Amino acid sequence: MNSFEKLNKRIREKKNYLCVGLDSDLSKIPLFFLQNSGVAKKDIEYFTGKDLTKLNTLLDFNSVIIELTKDITISYKINFAFYEQYGASGFKVIEKTLSLIPEEVFTIADAKRGDIGNTSKAYAKAVFETLNFDSVTVSPYMGSDSVSPFLEFEDKITFLLCLTSNPGSNDFQKLEVKIPDQEKNTINKQVFLYQYLMQKYSEQFRYQNIGFVVGATHPTEISDLREINQNSVFLIPGIGAQGGDLEQTLKANGDSPCLINVSRGIIYPESDSLENFKIRVNQISNNYADKISQICF
Amino acid sequence: MNSFEKLNKRIREKKNYLCVGLDSDLSKIPLFFLQNSGVAKKDIEYFTGKDLTKLNTLLDFNSVIIELTKDITISYKINFAFYEQYGASGFKVIEKTLSLIPEEVFTIADAKRGDIGNTSKAYAKAVFETLNFDSVTVSPYMGSDSVSPFLEFEDKITFLLCLTSNPGSNDFQKLEVKIPDQEKNTINKQVFLYQYLMQKYSEQFRYQNIGFVVGATHPTEISDLREINQNSVFLIPGIGAQGGDLEQTLKANGDSPCLINVSRGIIYPESDSLENFKIRVNQISNNYADKISQICF
Repeated sequence: MNSFEKLNKRIREKKNYLCVGLDSDLSKIPLFFLQNSGVAKKDIEYFTGKDLTKLNTLLDFNSVIIELTKDITISYKINFAFYEQYGASGFKVIEKTLSLIPEEVFTIADAKRGDIGNTSKAYAKAVFETLNFDSVTVSPYMGSDSVSPFLEFEDKITFLLCLTSNPGSNDFQKLEVKIPDQEKNTINKQVFLYQYLMQKYSEQFRYQNIGFVVGATHPTEISDLREINQNSVFLIPGIGAQGGDLEQTLKANGDSPCLINVSRGIIYPESDSLENFKIRVNQISNNYADKISQICF
Repeated sequence: MNSFEKLNKRIREKKNYLCVGLDSDLSKIPLFFLQNSGVAKKDIEYFTGKDLTKLNTLLDFNSVIIELTKDITISYKINFAFYEQYGASGFKVIEKTLSLIPEEVFTIADAKRGDIGNTSKAYAKAVFETLNFDSVTVSPYMGSDSVSPFLEFEDKITFLLCLTSNPGSNDFQKLEVKIPDQEKNTINKQVFLYQYLMQKYSEQFRYQNIGFVVGATHPTEISDLREINQNSVFLIPGIGAQGGDLEQTLKANGDSPCLINVSRGIIYPESDSLENFKIRVNQISNNYADKISQICF
């Protein structure tokens, strides 16, 4: 079973599209986790990744989140930045976190890599072979030869950044571009960079192992993009902390496969004790899953 | 002294622009290195980063390259992909390699990171605080708020991918774009994405802590880009294995500060013994430095 099939199987079984984002950050983890692990709040700013005991807090935190959400979530997305900030030891936490995720849950390496061919090959090896993720996020700005080493892993899914959820997505992704003379303009009269990007890569690669990152902050654009590509998976961040609306997003996406990522909105609920924290994470993640289920299944 | 000043001081002292790229890869390191370290060639493909003894080969290799080039090179560029492919242990090699580089030599984290604001902040912390690099390469496609967390480190240099050296740079970076109505077109009648990108970021940030990656495979475009920005450092890869011409590139860049990166061309010379390897690395790197010196100083 390849990763695309694994994802679809999980979606059929669980009847939702939830992805829990493990943007785990020592400076945001509640005090009661830190106290349990013997890390004082004041130590955090001096933390340099050299002390593995302190990193156990990060791993403990992930293990609690996974324990609370693994029966309903479709996927976990591990945001590399939050681990890399602790150097090699942080990278070790990624490896250990992966070992806590049940086999049937889909995994995303949110690493946004992308480089010239021989370098992308090494990045692809890092996430797909060394770490054995089901999928990865890739920055496609350097062109075809920078993404193809990822897409050569045909049993995995490579998510290309298309129209991201942040305000800066307007700066370049939404620029109007002129389609080169030798190519037909099959989109619209006006073509934006993010649309051209999706068209070009959708034509070039198999839909099963290519996916696209499209922010929930752009619902109108999501439905336009679904005119270009109905079959590939869209990874949709931007719900929760970033302000995207769940119902609008799901309607714009229609019947196509997607993953709705929620990170901060699930893993950092307001709470004053570990017990209360667990209740809130459980409630919020179930609410998301139920709401998606009601709208789409 | 900030990183821009450190770089300029080194350039003035050494009178060249050489950057040695540490794209160190176990599968390319010559057999005599591996034999010394007890790693058989056949083991390499099974290497998963779990064995630190094997990673010592990577570190030995870097230490030999650094020993041979540290007196002439301006900078070392560490390409993260080649280390990340060995997981957390590979990341450890980055940390240890940095400790071998003399204080006065400029360092580049070639990581091509870039994400939404709060995530970019963690990536910036990883390279500038945890690892203490002088500079980083960043993918700017996600817009201003994805790069500003890097640029907030005012004493460092953030190199934005502008026009990369690979064939795929034609796919998107060279698309003609329409400048938004509220902005003045101060470049040309025809504006390409890579030009617009440089203009926009050059206006927005201080020239000292922003730099741009521009491939040596595009000499004409380099001289056009120098019309837009004369003061920022250009990091120029693509000489050697990728086919860029040194003299043409330097002439296109003019008197502005730059770094000419050579990776494979220096660190993997044809050789049949460690002794011979050392002679070749020494010769080739000195040739590059001398040639740059003759043309520019």
